[in-house]
Formats: sequence, structure tokens, C-alpha cells
Amino acid sequence: MTSTKLTIVVQETNPQLRTTPNGCTTHEALAPIIFVGQLFSLLPISGYFRTPASMLKFTFKSIHFAYGCFTVFIMCAIISMFVAYRIQRGTIGLGATATCIYYAVIITAMVEFIILARNWPSIMQRWTDDEHIFLFYPYETGQCLRLESLVKRVAFTMIFFAFVEDTINFISAYQLNVVHMKYCTHATDFWRNFFRREHAYILRFIPYHPVLGASIEIMMRVAKFTWHYIDVFIICVSLALQRRFQQYNDRIRSFNGNQQPEEVWRALRLDFLQLSELVTYLDTKLSRIILLSCANDMFFISVQLYNIFDPKQTTVTTFYYWYSLLFLICRCFVMLYVTSSIYEASLKPLELLRDFATSSWNLDLQRLLDHASLKSIAFSGKRFFFITRPLILAMAGTIITYELVLLDQVAKDQDTTRDCDF
Amino acid sequence: MTSTKLTIVVQETNPQLRTTPNGCTTHEALAPIIFVGQLFSLLPISGYFRTPASMLKFTFKSIHFAYGCFTVFIMCAIISMFVAYRIQRGTIGLGATATCIYYAVIITAMVEFIILARNWPSIMQRWTDDEHIFLFYPYETGQCLRLESLVKRVAFTMIFFAFVEDTINFISAYQLNVVHMKYCTHATDFWRNFFRREHAYILRFIPYHPVLGASIEIMMRVAKFTWHYIDVFIICVSLALQRRFQQYNDRIRSFNGNQQPEEVWRALRLDFLQLSELVTYLDTKLSRIILLSCANDMFFISVQLYNIFDPKQTTVTTFYYWYSLLFLICRCFVMLYVTSSIYEASLKPLELLRDFATSSWNLDLQRLLDHASLKSIAFSGKRFFFITRPLILAMAGTIITYELVLLDQVAKDQDTTRDCDF
Amino acid sequence: MTSTKLTIVVQETNPQLRTTPNGCTTHEALAPIIFVGQLFSLLPISGYFRTPASMLKFTFKSIHFAYGCFTVFIMCAIISMFVAYRIQRGTIGLGATATCIYYAVIITAMVEFIILARNWPSIMQRWTDDEHIFLFYPYETGQCLRLESLVKRVAFTMIFFAFVEDTINFISAYQLNVVHMKYCTHATDFWRNFFRREHAYILRFIPYHPVLGASIEIMMRVAKFTWHYIDVFIICVSLALQRRFQQYNDRIRSFNGNQQPEEVWRALRLDFLQLSELVTYLDTKLSRIILLSCANDMFFISVQLYNIFDPKQTTVTTFYYWYSLLFLICRCFVMLYVTSSIYEASLKPLELLRDFATSSWNLDLQRLLDHASLKSIAFSGKRFFFITRPLILAMAGTIITYELVLLDQVAKDQDTTRDCDF
Amino acid sequence: MTSTKLTIVVQETNPQLRTTPNGCTTHEALAPIIFVGQLFSLLPISGYFRTPASMLKFTFKSIHFAYGCFTVFIMCAIISMFVAYRIQRGTIGLGATATCIYYAVIITAMVEFIILARNWPSIMQRWTDDEHIFLFYPYETGQCLRLESLVKRVAFTMIFFAFVEDTINFISAYQLNVVHMKYCTHATDFWRNFFRREHAYILRFIPYHPVLGASIEIMMRVAKFTWHYIDVFIICVSLALQRRFQQYNDRIRSFNGNQQPEEVWRALRLDFLQLSELVTYLDTKLSRIILLSCANDMFFISVQLYNIFDPKQTTVTTFYYWYSLLFLICRCFVMLYVTSSIYEASLKPLELLRDFATSSWNLDLQRLLDHASLKSIAFSGKRFFFITRPLILAMAGTIITYELVLLDQVAKDQDTTRDCDF
Repeated sequence: MTSTKLTIVVQETNPQLRTTPNGCTTHEALAPIIFVGQLFSLLPISGYFRTPASMLKFTFKSIHFAYGCFTVFIMCAIISMFVAYRIQRGTIGLGATATCIYYAVIITAMVEFIILARNWPSIMQRWTDDEHIFLFYPYETGQCLRLESLVKRVAFTMIFFAFVEDTINFISAYQLNVVHMKYCTHATDFWRNFFRREHAYILRFIPYHPVLGASIEIMMRVAKFTWHYIDVFIICVSLALQRRFQQYNDRIRSFNGNQQPEEVWRALRLDFLQLSELVTYLDTKLSRIILLSCANDMFFISVQLYNIFDPKQTTVTTFYYWYSLLFLICRCFVMLYVTSSIYEASLKPLELLRDFATSSWNLDLQRLLDHASLKSIAFSGKRFFFITRPLILAMAGTIITYELVLLDQVAKDQDTTRDCDF
Repeated sequence: MTSTKLTIVVQETNPQLRTTPNGCTTHEALAPIIFVGQLFSLLPISGYFRTPASMLKFTFKSIHFAYGCFTVFIMCAIISMFVAYRIQRGTIGLGATATCIYYAVIITAMVEFIILARNWPSIMQRWTDDEHIFLFYPYETGQCLRLESLVKRVAFTMIFFAFVEDTINFISAYQLNVVHMKYCTHATDFWRNFFRREHAYILRFIPYHPVLGASIEIMMRVAKFTWHYIDVFIICVSLALQRRFQQYNDRIRSFNGNQQPEEVWRALRLDFLQLSELVTYLDTKLSRIILLSCANDMFFISVQLYNIFDPKQTTVTTFYYWYSLLFLICRCFVMLYVTSSIYEASLKPLELLRDFATSSWNLDLQRLLDHASLKSIAFSGKRFFFITRPLILAMAGTIITYELVLLDQVAKDQDTTRDCDF
Repeated sequence: MTSTKLTIVVQETNPQLRTTPNGCTTHEALAPIIFVGQLFSLLPISGYFRTPASMLKFTFKSIHFAYGCFTVFIMCAIISMFVAYRIQRGTIGLGATATCIYYAVIITAMVEFIILARNWPSIMQRWTDDEHIFLFYPYETGQCLRLESLVKRVAFTMIFFAFVEDTINFISAYQLNVVHMKYCTHATDFWRNFFRREHAYILRFIPYHPVLGASIEIMMRVAKFTWHYIDVFIICVSLALQRRFQQYNDRIRSFNGNQQPEEVWRALRLDFLQLSELVTYLDTKLSRIILLSCANDMFFISVQLYNIFDPKQTTVTTFYYWYSLLFLICRCFVMLYVTSSIYEASLKPLELLRDFATSSWNLDLQRLLDHASLKSIAFSGKRFFFITRPLILAMAGTIITYELVLLDQVAKDQDTTRDCDF
Repeated sequence: MTSTKLTIVVQETNPQLRTTPNGCTTHEALAPIIFVGQLFSLLPISGYFRTPASMLKFTFKSIHFAYGCFTVFIMCAIISMFVAYRIQRGTIGLGATATCIYYAVIITAMVEFIILARNWPSIMQRWTDDEHIFLFYPYETGQCLRLESLVKRVAFTMIFFAFVEDTINFISAYQLNVVHMKYCTHATDFWRNFFRREHAYILRFIPYHPVLGASIEIMMRVAKFTWHYIDVFIICVSLALQRRFQQYNDRIRSFNGNQQPEEVWRALRLDFLQLSELVTYLDTKLSRIILLSCANDMFFISVQLYNIFDPKQTTVTTFYYWYSLLFLICRCFVMLYVTSSIYEASLKPLELLRDFATSSWNLDLQRLLDHASLKSIAFSGKRFFFITRPLILAMAGTIITYELVLLDQVAKDQDTTRDCDF
């Protein structure tokens, strides 16, 4: 009944296989994502397209860093003007609070990305060292999509949808301005009115000029992109990590339950140790950004769900609100799902090790089992929560409860197209 | 005080016992359930009444598949008409949203069952292989009900109550129509008015004809049956799985704490491994349906609880609402209870193994213990949650919270028997 | 630094000590509690004051059983009259629902206690067998209160407060009647009016007579006592169990970290096994009553908290409501706290075993550790929840949430002293 | 691939290092905190500035104890007058309830600190014994801040912010009195009016005199300080404990994965045992205070959040409310964060032990692993909850839910500057 399989898989014979990498490093895979981020002033580092990772450099005297500081400064100015304007008008409702938090999140994210950029060379150095073994035989990449393609596709799909959102947002604002111009006859200059409607708090302090209008619009795009980029960045990092765990599990699965020499198990345990320590290390570096991202997503999903049932003035605006909400939910879900996959993948050895016969059981196997089971190997939000599948459900449940409680409770913001007093 | 029992139970002596199966396979037990499903266009496979399981076949060019596609198409048409009609009338309340979700759930379920049918031959092949050992000595079925009878009884009891619900629903709609006819004098044709009241969104687009009315009524029954069948199907599958765990536990219990030779424990560990891997395998195939079922049940229990206290126009309608709610709660509870029993049964070895003396303790026993304790062996909803007893409590608590929050908050739908404008 | 202590405590030397029991059996300790229950028709068994436990007997042809059935019948009659009366009047608010549930709980409890009584002889037989070892050296009872005294004190304190509640309830009803008589001049007979106010639903169907009034009042006391008795009974059973775990932990603690011969550890593991299997066995027999008790307590704490802020007509009534609420909360808390102590006590070995030196560590110790940690040894509500300390917090949190949600939401019942239309 | 490192770190060679303590005892570190507490009548012990810890003494016949009893008595008098006053006026809203709970918390805290003071000599004796090993080589304090400085800085920062709050509170009350004096022309004496506004319930029973006013004001400061001191004290105790775990982890980390002789591991396991037993011991002594602190913080954060959006009469008052709320949230967060760090630190060995080679694995290491994983080593609130990072999130989530539910639900207190009827 239990014919113990005795064929030992003779591994690691072909020295050539051990010299050709079977995939790209995370450093290489993340480069395009960092490049796009830099267009919008985030992650001010240089050398990210070069190999090896030790070419990465962060200097305070770079154009990237100056660009980053400049956008942070502008955003601070904008939020200050916004708060000053609102206090002057004396109306602080849910809408104003949400806008305030939106800018605060963006400034925090920008600063966090600068701090991350400073640590990035050492992070990447360690990551490259730790994942080195996974690039060579006996580990394989399998038939699935290569890491760099996967990261690129997922990230650029997200970014594409983000740009679509921007476009619809602009069209919606344009249409609302048309409606407003019709209603308030005293308004004459279309674009002046447009920016006054959208960014009254800036035009209160700086006189209008077409160049100012264009600059504001560009800054708003940078801000919005930063808001999306937080999630996109976490997704890409998680994809790279999860892929390594997958390779690890694939290797164990490829043994097919056959006995292995003790040294193989020892090596496997050490590889798992390296991976899990990498996760812990990255978690200390990234968990502030993860916490920010989760809090941000939960808050804005709640706010947008709450506003969705208000009547809108134009069809495009209605469409924009629905598109924006759905995109936000999807973005948040993908981020949580991919991040939680690290935890799921780290639990897989618990199942896979069961297939090996008791006759060849040894202490390294037992320790590997303890390792995978005793402490969660997962990204966390400053260890207040670990990102796992049940967490996603808990977050969804919390949002639903909040929405049900808020139904009909808080006074809504007014229709701004009927407000002609500026 | 600790007189270690030394009598070894000599097992597996009678070769004849090992050749007569002591029960039917899951493949055989599920056949009648699949048959009933097929009457309502679900699970388009053939050969499910034949043994062995390898006779199962799924082909795109079968009458079953055509029937399945046809009902999916009709349901899509119905939901489109419903949405179009509601947008035209411009009233989207809780009732309309619930109806929309109801149809969406049914279409999703139909599609999921077609996908499942495609995988069914390979699923059944694996299941039959894995459960083979449980059909022969040393495993026994015990004195309790045979699997096929159990599955049949539970399933057909549920289906019976579902048909009772259908009947009461029809009587209630009939009575409401009588009331409506009395109030609105311009209505003349009883059945035309009946279908106009019940399915206004269809008659808006297709002119009324008695045949159309009958067809709609049949489609509604198919839809409702699909809605019930999701839970019934999960119950039957879970019953079959749980029975195997029971047999497993019964065998260990039958040892009565006596020492066993090492090979017996090895075999037992491998049997447990096979069972738990079967659960994991089935979970990957079924968890989308389970997730759908749980979400569906929670949503409709909330909605129906919310509507239950509205005044109803006829006594039969009141009775129908209460019957429908109670049946829904029972159906959901039975589904969750039976499914969670798999988890409960998989934990039983933790207790049973404690009875065996330390003197004959060995690594296989220890690994069996680790196996049962380290990772949940249970059906899950895409691993967002595992179906266990505490989950049932958590779901009940969530529904109660939602109901309390919703009390007096949302505007109710109007009395439709006073609405004569069509 | 780690001078391993080598003195072996020579145990079990004095044969005389092993023949004198150091405490009473649970059977003896629970006898007075069962006696009080029988006065109010619960637990219809005989022989519970006699030793050994095999003298316990349950017969259908006993006066106890007849008394039990009679009260069940009366309660069924009362609830029927109540429902009929309320449907006639057509007003079903929170108050009526609560009363209905109150009677339903009492009937269920009465029936559950009859079922328990049927199983009681076999339960007690097993319990007496399993706890036998704890009555003799090397186990000791310690300096604390003897089990029978502890059970008696706790139970009779609870029962005393219950009778105080009854008395205040009566005085409050009396005062309210006085107020009502003053307001409604047409009322003449004080007691007729009293019972009409309190039990209108009975006097609707049966003409008033002083004897009927007295009977109703007695039945109400029996009902109320049953309502309290559920918790009292669970408390007493839990105290007895928890005491055994305490004795077990005390024995390990008395070793003071000194090495013990292997046989001692083996015996200790088996004793722990016996205790934990006893908990599991009792849980299957009692968990329906525990589930009923918890649901009942949570529901009535919520309802009474909700009603507490209504203005009351007399000071005594106000006092009664506060006393009743506080007593209910205390009763529930004591029940949960004592029951959760079983779980706390069962975890204690995890800590105590750490004190023993590694040099004398053995498989039995390891298995004992696994035993205590792998599966919760605790009473449960049909395994939907285990009664532990965090559960108490969760229940309190849930009640607070419900109360906050309900504030100002549901229409209150009216002032009944101004209602003269009967 | 797995070149097992064979260099054994030769430890414990320098006998001199073992005689010089590398840091101060907790007894010494906590002394200034206790001193400040005693200024406000808390913790009536003597000898806390002297070394060794056996110099600590608690006597009933000391000036400290008399001072403590005196303040408890005054607080009891104040709460009695408050309750009597409120019942007379017949208005018991949220504000009055909150004030009542505020005084009740302070009295409870004062009594708890007296009880703690009684136990303090034995607690400190045990703590000093248990932490003795951590003051000498091979344990080191590292480069970070010394324990006594850390405790002092954290505690005095908190106390400083508390005094700032007091000052703003006084200014706010002063300003409100100015506003009130302007509105109500009949008021003449500024300070009489001031105390009448602030402490009407005292002046109702005792005639006003400037000395009385000053005394009341001092008592209010003592009360407020006690309210803050609960959290400050828990923070300091937790810092001291967490520092020990850190030293422990630093030592293991300093091995750098190199093999150690078996005796070292044995000693390490016993050190960990000592630490974790110290946590358990302290938890039994402190968990009532911890429970009080958590309940207190949650209640007052909820209440103050609820009141924050009310319009205030003066800008200073608005500022005071925001400052007070933010300080309260920070205080609570720091308390929970520091306390949960004990748990986090106690889990660290799980990770650190993975770095050691399997070849030198032994039973002590395994037991250390079991020890750290099987039972939470953390401070708890009477074991109803353990203070961990996820708990902080759960508390925040609960407060948010409560706030959302309460929005617009409960009637607010009136503007007291328009109330001239006293």
C-alpha cells in the first residue's frame, strides 16, 4: 500500500545550466516602472536601467531629486491655499475634508517615495543577492509569462486605465463648465471660469493667467498619477516576490514526492529562509507605504460609494463617477490580491512537504515545516495587519457596514453649477 | 495506572472482504442530483448514470449543452429587458437592484455550472480514484444511512420545499392580481394583467400572447430552481466528502487505543493525505460556486428580512414572504453546516490520536498530527474565508448588524396593487 | 547558571493516603442544585442525593417527570394564548416579540432539561469514573473552599438575588396597579385589575378567579426561575470541571520544576487526556443548553438596555428595571467567566511544563504540550463558538454596537397605566 | 551551498565584564516616575530612590498613604455632590454621564494605585531578581538610549503635554467666563462666577470662598493628572520590559548564526523562561489597571470625537478641544504601541533561531521555539484581550464605527454661556 519510492532524483549535474540565468532580476523587471514614476517626479534615483544593481545611485544633487522636491513644494502650497480658502469661506463638509486628505496622502506618498529612493540602492543590492539562486538551475521559471513582461503588462494596464480616468475627468469638468456658463450669464472667459470652478482656492490667491491654468492642470495630473502609483508600485514589488515563492514551490513539486538527499533539503530550507527574510526586510522598508495605500483606498472607496447616488449634472459626470469608483475598487482589489498571494505562496510548502515519505524525513524538513507555519510571511501595514485573503473580506465588510450606517445621515454637498457668486 | 495495552489488532486478514465494495462511489451517489439539474438545463454532461466514472463525457455538440446555452441566452435577454425598462422609468430602488442581482446570480451560476460540467469528467475520475480505498475493508460504512440514500433524501427534501415555495409564489401572485383587477377597472384580460403585473419589463418589449406568458412562467421556474440548486449541489458534494472523513475517523476509533504496526500508521497517514488533497483539489474547482452561493445567500437573507415587516396585500402573500425567508435561511444554514462538517471531521484525528500509547508513537503519527493541525482542510470561498462553524456565527452576526442599521433608513417600495397606469 | 536540579520527588509512597478521598464527587456537589431545580419542575430524576452515582434513575412514570411535563404544557398554553391575543389586537412590537421569545426560551429550556435528565445517569456515571483519580493522593484539593461549598455558595447567591428580583417585580407591578386604578375610575376589584394588567392575554380566554390569579403568579415564578436556572446550572457544572483542572495544575506546580520519573509523566498525560475527553463529552451533552443560554442572555441584555432609558411610572419600577438589568448582566458575566475558566485552566500546563529541565524531557511531555495547544479544550455553543475570555469581550462589543445603532430608531411601547380600554 | 559555519563564539571569558552592570535596574529607572506620581498622591510607597529594591516599603502609617486616602475621599465627595446635583436638576445627558465616568475612573485608578503600592515592594523584588542577568555580560545594552533616560524622556514629554493641556483648559474656561459675564449682567464677582460655571455642583452644597475655589482647582489638576498618569505608568513599565526582550534578541542576533555549545542554548532558554514568567507575573498585578486604561481611553476618545464638531464659543475653547482630543489619541496610541512591542519582541526569537544550522539543533532550541510560539507573551486586559498590534487596529475600527453610528443621533448638550439662571 505504501511502496516507498526509492528513485533519487539526481540533481545539479549539468554545470552549464548553472551559468545561464533563466530569467531577469527584479532590478531589471522594475526599471520601466521606476522610469514612469520618475516622469511624474517620484523615486529620484539614477542608474536603474543599468546592470548590476550596484550601479543604482541616489544623490541629493540630481535633477530627479530637485524635481521631486519641487512637486512636493507645489503640493504643499496647493494644500495650504485650499485650507486657507476653506477656513475663509467657513464651510468644511465631507467634500472639503476628502480633498484635504487627498492632498495630504499625495504629499506623504511623495515624501515616502523620496525616502524609499534613498534606501533603494541598498534594498536592490540585497534583493539581487537574495534572489540570485533563483535565476539558475535547479530553479526554473516555468512556461508562464516572464517576470519582466508580467510586471510591465500589469503595471501599464493599470496606468492606461488611470489615463483614461484623467481624460474622462477632464471631459466631465469641461461639460460642467459649459452648463455653468449657460446658467451664470455674468461669466465670460470660458477657461478662466473653468479654472475658477475647479480650483477656486488657487485663483483666490494668484491672479488667473492661461499659463497658470495649464500649470495647475499638469500638477493635478501629477498628483493623480502619484495617487495611482502607490498601488501600482506595491503590485509590481509583490509580483516579483511572489514569483520567487512560486519558483520555490515549483521546484519542490517537481520532486514528485521522491526522496532527496539530505543536503538538498538543507539547501531548500536555507533558500526558504533567504526568501522569508527578504520579505521581512522589504516589509520594514515598504510597510509605511502599504499602510498609507490601504488607508487611502478604504477611505476613498467609502467616500466615492457615498457620493455615487447623488444626482449629477451631466451624463459624462455620472459616467466619470462610476468609472472612477470601479477603477478604484479594482485597483485596490488587485493590489491586495497580489500582495496576499505572497502569503498564500509561502504556505504552499506546508502542503507540498506532506507528499514526502516518512522514511526520509529529517530535521531540516521539520524545521522548514515549522518555519512556514509559525510566523506569517507576508507584507503588513506596520504589522497592524498582515495582507492576507481574509483581510480583503474584512475590509470589504467594513466598507459595507460604514456605507449602510452613513445612508441618509450626513448632509450632502450642494450642486456647484448653480453657484454664481464668484 | 498506565497499563499499556499490548494486544495488536491483526488487521487486513480476510482477502475476500477487500474485494466487495461496502458502499457506492460519489459518482453513483451524485447521479440523481445531476439528473434533476439537467432537467433545468444545468451541468450539461452525459454518462453520469453509467459506471465507471470514465464514461462521463462533456461535448459541445450535445443537446444538454445546447439547452444550457439557450437558457443562459434567455436569461441574458430578460435581464437586458429589465435594465432597459428600469432606466426608461427612471426608478432604481432596492427592489429593482435586488431583482437585477438575482438575475445576475442566476446567469453566473448557469455559466459556472457549464464550466464545471466541462471539468466534471476529470474531477470525477480523480475523486473515484482517491476514494477507492474507502470502499473496501478495512474501511467500513457503519450502520448509518448509505451515502446514496443520504444524498438523495437531503437533496430531494430541499427540492420538494423549493417546489412548495414556487406553488405558494404562484398562488400569491394570482391573488394579488385578483386584488389589482378589482381596484383598476380598466383591466380586462386576467392573464394579460397577471403577466403585465409580474413581468412588465418583458411585455414592454414583446407583445403579450398566452404562449409567451406560459414560456415566461417556465423560465422563471428554471431560474428559481437554479437559484436553489447552487446550494443543493454544494450540500451533496460536501456530504459525500464528509462521509469519507467519517469513515476514516471510524477506522481509527475502531482501534480503540490499541497499538498498531508501523505500516498501518503509514498507510493511514497516506489515506489522510489523499483525502485532504482531494479537498484542496475540489476547492480549487468549486470555490467560485461556493463564493457565489454564500454572497447570494447573505444578500437575499438581508433583503428579505428587510422587506418582511412591510404590510402585504393578501394573507397568502404574507405567508409566502415568511415561508420564503425561512426556507432561504434553512437552505443557507444547511449548506454552511454540512460544508463546515468537513472541517470538523478533518480535525477529529487530533483527538483520536491522543488515545494511542506513547510507547508506540512514531514519526508518521506525529506527521499526521501536524497535517491535521497546520492547515485548514475545508472548503473555502476562493480562500477569502474557510467554511467553518464560527463563520456561520460571523455571517449571522453581520446580517443582524446590517438589519439593525437599515431599520427605518431606506425608503420602501410602493404598493403595486394601487398602480393602474399601464 | 543552569544547575539542573536532580532531586527526584519520591511520590506515591503512603498507601493510606490513596484510600481516603480528599473531596466530594461532582455527583454529590451538584445534588442540592438539582434539588432546587426539581422544586421548579426541572431535571426530573431520582436518586441524586444517594451515592454512588449508579443510584441515579430516570423513569417516565415518576412524579418528577409528570410535574415537568405539566409545566411544559402550561407554558405552551400560555404562549399560545399570548400569540392569539396579540394577533387579535394586531399590535406586535418589540415588547411583544421579547415576551414571545421569553416564553419560547423557557419552554425550550424545560424540554432540554428533561432530555438532559434522561442522559443524566450515564453522564454522571462517566463523570464519576473520570474524576475518581482526582479524589485521591497524589491529587490534593488544596486550602481553598471545598467543591460542594463553592458550588452551593455561588448557586444559592445567584438564586437569592433571583428571588429578590421576583419580589421587587411584584412590588413594582403592585404599585403600577395602584397608579392605574387611580387613573381609570371604572376599575373596581384591585386584584382582578392587577392580573388583567399583567396577564391580559390569559384573562381574555379564561374568566378571572382569585385561584387562577394565584396559579398564574406561581407559574410566572416557575418560568422566571427556569430562565435564571439555565445559567446557574451551567455555572455549577463549569465550577466542578474547572476545579479538576486546577487540581491537575496544582499537582504539576507542586513538582516545583524537579525531574520526575517517566511513568509519572505518562500517568499525567493520561489524566489530562481523561479530563479533556470529559470536557468534550460534556460539551456534546450540554452545548445546546449553552447555546440557548448565550443567545438568551445577549438578546435580553440588548432589550433591557434598550428599554432602560424610558421614563417609568413609579420609582420602584425604575429601580426594578435597573436591578433586573444589572442582575442579568452579572449572571451572564459570571456564567461566561466561570465557563471560560475551564479553557484558561486547560492552557496552564503549557506554561507549567516549561519549568522542567530539558535533560528529562520526553515524548509524553511533548505530547502533553501538543495536546493542550492543538485543540481548544473548552465548552462551546454547538462549536459555533468556544467560550473563552475574548468571546466575552466580543459579546460585550456586539451588544454596545447594537445599542448605539438602535438609539432613537425603533418606536417604543406605550405607557400602559394610561390605557383604560379593558 | 550550505557551508556550515564551524567557528564557535567563545563566550563568557572575561570575568571582569561579569561584575560591572551595563545598565540600571528597572527599580532605579522607574523612581522619578513614581516620585512625580507621589506629588499627586499616587503610589504611596517609600524608599523608591534607594538601592537595592529591598529598601522599598509600604506602610499604612505614612504621610504618602494619608495623602492618597485624602484625595480618594475628596474625589468621592466630589462625585457624590455631582450625582446629587444632577439628580436634583433632573438632566442626565451624555455630558453628565461622561463626567460621572471620568470621576469614577479616577477614583478607581487611585484605589488601584494604592493596591499596587502595597504589592510594589514584592513586585520590584521579583523584577530585580529576574532582570539581574540582563545587567551583566554576555547581555549588553547596545548603543541606544539608556533605559533610565528613555523612560524619563518619554514620561516627562507626556507629562509636559499634559500640563500644556491643563493650561489651555484654564485659559479656555477663563475666556468662556468672560463671555458669560458679558451676557449675564447680574453676575458681579468674576471668580465666583468662574467656579459657579465650572463646578456648579460643588457650590450648590458648599458656600463659595476664594480658598475653596483654589482648592477645587488644585483637586481638578490632581484628578486630571491621575487620569493621564495611568497611561504614563503603563508606558514606563512596558518600556522597561521591552528593553529586556530587546537585549535578549540582540544577544541571539550577535551569534550571527554561528553554532553555540549546548549549555549556552540551555541558559538562553532559561533566560527566556524567566522573562516570560516575569511578564505573566506582572500581567496578573497590572492587568486591572491596563483594562481600566484601555476602557477609559476608548470611551473618552469616542466622547471627545463626538463633541468635536459642536460649535464652540471662543477660539481658545475650539483649540482646547482639538488639542485635548489629539493628545488623548496620541497618549492612547503610544501606550498601546509600546505595550504591544513586548509581544512583538517576544516573537522575534522565532525568526532569529531559523538562522542556526540544523547540525547543531537540539531539544532546548526546539523548546524555545515552542515556548515563543505556543502562548502569547504579552500584557493583557484581564486576559479578555492581549495588547498586540492588530488590537490597536481593532480598537480604532470600533471607535470609527461607533462615531459613524452616533452621527446626528443623540441630542447634544446646550451652550452653557447663555444659561444665566444661577
